[in-house]
Amino acid sequence: MNIIEAFKVTRNLTNSLCKPLKIEDYTPQSADFASPPKWHLAHTTWFFEQMILKPFVKDYEVFDSEFSFLFNSYYNTMGKRIASHERGLITRPSVDGVYEYRAYVDKHIEKLLSASQLDKAVSDLVVLGVNHEQQHQELLITDIKYTLSRNPIHPKLYEIAYANTLQETEALEFIDVGEGVYTIGSHKNEFCYDNELGHHRVFLENYAIANRLVTNREYIAFIEAKAYTTSKYWLDDGWCFVNSNNIKHPLYWEQEDHTWYVYTLAGRVLLNLDAPVMHISFYEAHAYANFKNKRLATEFEWEVANAQFHWGKTWEWTNSAYLPYPNYKQGEGAVGEYNGKFMINLMVLKGSSVATSPNHSRPTYRNFFSPETRWQFSGIRLAK
Amino acid sequence: MNIIEAFKVTRNLTNSLCKPLKIEDYTPQSADFASPPKWHLAHTTWFFEQMILKPFVKDYEVFDSEFSFLFNSYYNTMGKRIASHERGLITRPSVDGVYEYRAYVDKHIEKLLSASQLDKAVSDLVVLGVNHEQQHQELLITDIKYTLSRNPIHPKLYEIAYANTLQETEALEFIDVGEGVYTIGSHKNEFCYDNELGHHRVFLENYAIANRLVTNREYIAFIEAKAYTTSKYWLDDGWCFVNSNNIKHPLYWEQEDHTWYVYTLAGRVLLNLDAPVMHISFYEAHAYANFKNKRLATEFEWEVANAQFHWGKTWEWTNSAYLPYPNYKQGEGAVGEYNGKFMINLMVLKGSSVATSPNHSRPTYRNFFSPETRWQFSGIRLAK
Amino acid sequence: MNIIEAFKVTRNLTNSLCKPLKIEDYTPQSADFASPPKWHLAHTTWFFEQMILKPFVKDYEVFDSEFSFLFNSYYNTMGKRIASHERGLITRPSVDGVYEYRAYVDKHIEKLLSASQLDKAVSDLVVLGVNHEQQHQELLITDIKYTLSRNPIHPKLYEIAYANTLQETEALEFIDVGEGVYTIGSHKNEFCYDNELGHHRVFLENYAIANRLVTNREYIAFIEAKAYTTSKYWLDDGWCFVNSNNIKHPLYWEQEDHTWYVYTLAGRVLLNLDAPVMHISFYEAHAYANFKNKRLATEFEWEVANAQFHWGKTWEWTNSAYLPYPNYKQGEGAVGEYNGKFMINLMVLKGSSVATSPNHSRPTYRNFFSPETRWQFSGIRLAK
Amino acid sequence: MNIIEAFKVTRNLTNSLCKPLKIEDYTPQSADFASPPKWHLAHTTWFFEQMILKPFVKDYEVFDSEFSFLFNSYYNTMGKRIASHERGLITRPSVDGVYEYRAYVDKHIEKLLSASQLDKAVSDLVVLGVNHEQQHQELLITDIKYTLSRNPIHPKLYEIAYANTLQETEALEFIDVGEGVYTIGSHKNEFCYDNELGHHRVFLENYAIANRLVTNREYIAFIEAKAYTTSKYWLDDGWCFVNSNNIKHPLYWEQEDHTWYVYTLAGRVLLNLDAPVMHISFYEAHAYANFKNKRLATEFEWEVANAQFHWGKTWEWTNSAYLPYPNYKQGEGAVGEYNGKFMINLMVLKGSSVATSPNHSRPTYRNFFSPETRWQFSGIRLAK
Repeated sequence: MNIIEAFKVTRNLTNSLCKPLKIEDYTPQSADFASPPKWHLAHTTWFFEQMILKPFVKDYEVFDSEFSFLFNSYYNTMGKRIASHERGLITRPSVDGVYEYRAYVDKHIEKLLSASQLDKAVSDLVVLGVNHEQQHQELLITDIKYTLSRNPIHPKLYEIAYANTLQETEALEFIDVGEGVYTIGSHKNEFCYDNELGHHRVFLENYAIANRLVTNREYIAFIEAKAYTTSKYWLDDGWCFVNSNNIKHPLYWEQEDHTWYVYTLAGRVLLNLDAPVMHISFYEAHAYANFKNKRLATEFEWEVANAQFHWGKTWEWTNSAYLPYPNYKQGEGAVGEYNGKFMINLMVLKGSSVATSPNHSRPTYRNFFSPETRWQFSGIRLAK
Repeated sequence: MNIIEAFKVTRNLTNSLCKPLKIEDYTPQSADFASPPKWHLAHTTWFFEQMILKPFVKDYEVFDSEFSFLFNSYYNTMGKRIASHERGLITRPSVDGVYEYRAYVDKHIEKLLSASQLDKAVSDLVVLGVNHEQQHQELLITDIKYTLSRNPIHPKLYEIAYANTLQETEALEFIDVGEGVYTIGSHKNEFCYDNELGHHRVFLENYAIANRLVTNREYIAFIEAKAYTTSKYWLDDGWCFVNSNNIKHPLYWEQEDHTWYVYTLAGRVLLNLDAPVMHISFYEAHAYANFKNKRLATEFEWEVANAQFHWGKTWEWTNSAYLPYPNYKQGEGAVGEYNGKFMINLMVLKGSSVATSPNHSRPTYRNFFSPETRWQFSGIRLAK
Repeated sequence: MNIIEAFKVTRNLTNSLCKPLKIEDYTPQSADFASPPKWHLAHTTWFFEQMILKPFVKDYEVFDSEFSFLFNSYYNTMGKRIASHERGLITRPSVDGVYEYRAYVDKHIEKLLSASQLDKAVSDLVVLGVNHEQQHQELLITDIKYTLSRNPIHPKLYEIAYANTLQETEALEFIDVGEGVYTIGSHKNEFCYDNELGHHRVFLENYAIANRLVTNREYIAFIEAKAYTTSKYWLDDGWCFVNSNNIKHPLYWEQEDHTWYVYTLAGRVLLNLDAPVMHISFYEAHAYANFKNKRLATEFEWEVANAQFHWGKTWEWTNSAYLPYPNYKQGEGAVGEYNGKFMINLMVLKGSSVATSPNHSRPTYRNFFSPETRWQFSGIRLAK
Repeated sequence: MNIIEAFKVTRNLTNSLCKPLKIEDYTPQSADFASPPKWHLAHTTWFFEQMILKPFVKDYEVFDSEFSFLFNSYYNTMGKRIASHERGLITRPSVDGVYEYRAYVDKHIEKLLSASQLDKAVSDLVVLGVNHEQQHQELLITDIKYTLSRNPIHPKLYEIAYANTLQETEALEFIDVGEGVYTIGSHKNEFCYDNELGHHRVFLENYAIANRLVTNREYIAFIEAKAYTTSKYWLDDGWCFVNSNNIKHPLYWEQEDHTWYVYTLAGRVLLNLDAPVMHISFYEAHAYANFKNKRLATEFEWEVANAQFHWGKTWEWTNSAYLPYPNYKQGEGAVGEYNGKFMINLMVLKGSSVATSPNHSRPTYRNFFSPETRWQFSGIRLAK
């Protein structure tokens, strides 16, 4: 797929994801960590306008000068922005206005990409913008799911609760990996984020890693063993977290008459016991592993072994903190704010999930969230 | 105007007020104290359904059983409800759905009111419902103003910033009122809230009350005298309030190049110096009075003297706490939750404002808000 | 008692109250609303030094210039001060140092008072200082009680739990008072605070007031009727208060095997069922009155009727907000910060308690606390 | 030094450290993260009683059964305990009482250690208790320093501000270390904590590490370059941290007339520009390294290179998160709560500081604090 194709496919996919939304769904923000669909639509567009059209297109006229302020996310080098928890207050511009913005920027990017001589800096930035938008596609899904879940009437967006139809039915086995020096990270032959660079070697002691994810059925055994109220399984922060937030099961679960239900984007449905457990925090993943006398893999163990098991249904919590690789170099300017400045207090997740966009996963990918995070499609693979 | 007329006029007015809104404006909630337009539209409707149609119409079928939960405000006797600060998350039902709900309930209420024999209990409740909806009409205006004001692009809803065009240009004079026993509160010859009953006598010492409201021009003198940073003018709580919230002028004001602008529902405009100051807290009203070596009137002083001055441009902070009148009787059941349970930590405001619905003001009316409240159209009348 | 006597008696009483304290008890601060004993000892002394010795004694040398900063309470006009919730961090000066400070200031005040020609301004301020210190004597008791109560080993300070030995055993009767114009407040023939001035008239409708306080036995009936979990008895704020703080009984009570115990300054003891209930918030007093289909008296009703019943065991919550009397004049300078600036969001308590200093009570006295306050010796008298 | 010697020396050192304290200093708690001296004295004693005397001495009578509750720190397996932020409220038992407790437990431990046949489990636990007490010795110093620093009169505890007299005057050079597989952690030939076990290999790429710590003089250049207000040097969380806490220099520094002063345990003194910078957070260390176009070392890089530079003046922030080593095994029961449950959201510090107890440092030691921590003696060594 050439770059102009990739650009169009990605931009269209975002629009398609929003098809089932009503206008009312586009604006509200249900939590500090979640953004409204309208914001995702506009922010990904702003990225192309700000990083590419403004610097590289002579006499480019911005669509609306106020959008910079409204749809910047966290780029300090790009000037002032509204507080990230106030995105839900931006009722204007309208949804129609944002789609016009998208069309306007698309037209200009496509024109730029059609030029006979395509500047390498531009094409690199377009690839980055495409990947950026793919990340927001997954966030768009996780965020609207979270928002709709807060509505007591369990709204239904899609026909099929696809995350709940997954099967993880192989017998649990552990794959042995021998000690040795392994190579980690990306060579940069294909696109990757700067946090995957700093291609380097690690020494791993012998270890073993599970061939599949933990299932809902297995996780229910953890709940039924009263693990949520047994301090010894938990990290101290995790113990505080579940107690002060009164957490007793994964996000979106509800029990009624001894039966577990789960909120999905197809409404509230019966929990599929054979699906992988998801929407759990790092703390829960860690406690579950302790409960089973196992542990979580490090990101390095996961990356080295990944060809030996299937992955892609849920993001998988690792026991690695999100920190720079040796020789990591942060980019210059706004692009440099993409990853490096978040390298503290977050844990790495490997793999990808059912909500991840096509072509947006690879073994070297480093996803990262704080250990309390539950609204992502995050699950557990055991190691020992 | 008969009851069926009054009902229709009021219901239509609510719809008219919402005409300039875009669908995107209906759902977000910009502060714990403000509610979304959609919520006001549905809640006022729920009130008629819950208090009248369900108990008084045989075989009445509720429009949607989930609406009770979604659009109850604070009636503990009416069952569970969503937390008041989570109203902005309710993207579904859609705005169209809420207008259908309104039409459905209107139809049934109108049918009920057309009956040859109208139950007194029903007509009393309809009158209460009409007054309840009129209160929400003002809140609808204050709330959407607050929401739009948080948007950096200063959206414009109406053509004319009517609050800013008011003139308060008479020379300031004080009207003397002699000491004596006066009668306070309502006889209940016309509609009033239960908090106006407990018709009773008070003794007032001699006092004098201003013939007009404080203007923006006068208030700017207070600002320019550095009163916001001079502790002696302020109540201790007020001093904390302005300092911890970094308050330096009325809500919606902005200064640029020594010129004051104000956000109105017609967008950001030049401040009219002759308009009455509004959108100030009790603390600011109280400090201003101190600064002028005057004081605020009590609600009794205001009520006794009200025929001697013009009022109706802004709500007027009094120095009376919102407490029950002697012999106050709280109603039974849900209606009893209307007023009595809020009688603590709030101050009484008298009069009415440009945003108050027609026919929704009278001298015995007791409005009440916490002393920090600024998003209402609240102003200052001096006394001594 | 002449002024020098009154001064000595008061100063000595403060020292006596502290006799049973260990050095360790003097410094910690157990809540934002409570102050350490050392702070009370020093602050009352600072008051005499700051208000009298510095302005009126030529060439007076302050004991230690840093004490002004450390032991100012809330007088903005007296310069900077440490935040009131940080008083517990001031381990130095030592307790001995504070007693030296007391002795030093006592010596100078006594010398000043022995002068043949005593300046009226000075003697007025000494009387104010004596009354100020008496107020702090009661706070000293309530504060140390609160601090010791937080210690799981229930320390014992005094031999007798005097508050728990009180008897309130008369049959409950209501005293009728006829409607009319009554005079309220102090003539200033004897010492009073500025908030008692503004001597004025009020009109009271007919009412009746209880001959005695509500007892623990009666209050237990309220608890056993599940009133703490029945919303209809509560003000909305009160309902939030008891729920969010998980309040189910008066402060200091504990139930074990169906028996009620209470923490007192003589340690934990069996609750005396015939003692008046105390250590309750306004919210609880208000809810109890609702439960009994009665109400609390206003401060005016209480003052008018006070000669007709016994009072003095507990402070009595009234249903009056703490607001200025007509013609109230705030004093100039620091003395003016004594009362007026607190006149918002507080409720008036009348009477006095077992912890009130001798000669520090009178019918016109207006005590005032926020409606959540529970650590004072506060109780309930019903009215109707 | 045999075990009984080590025990006595350590116990006496704790007492010596407290010599300059006044009784008033022993109880208050100045922050959630700091504990009162009395608590340290008692808690370290409780550890010996709870872990050794109760399980291993037949018919041992506990000194006071209530002390378990009062002086447990965070051991969930050891029953209930008071909240860690309420330690400052425990005025009783008195300081004398705590010293009696120490003497009582010392006597029994010494008797136990004098037995002809010393149980290996006992001696291991005594060694652990000694090391535990040494850790608390450093905390005792950092905590009392923090408490006294909050007092505006700058109390002086010791004669010499020893931390401020250190010299770090060598020319800055970087020591090269070659790539390769290195062994990390302890063999357990001598005492170590469980977090140092899991002896294992790591692969390190080529790197270089500074021969000395960053000095105050160098750090002032960072301040003067306005680095505290330049977002590009900071982690996103760090940027929030310094902004929301208004941090503009290391803890304990104050600038007056262009001169820097520092609060030390000898009172406020002139800042020694040649001393290593200390009392900085991880965020500041990280930002400083960015400012210098360098980075912080990982804990592995530090450990491998440690013989090549001097260390011991300040704890040194590394860029390693505090996570378990491969094959880490958490101990059983209460001892198992010592380290493992804290392995999230904390960063590792290597080395030791001027406040570290003698014999309580080794290259494999892993200290750990959250990245905001500033009250420890923490500094910066650069790497690249």
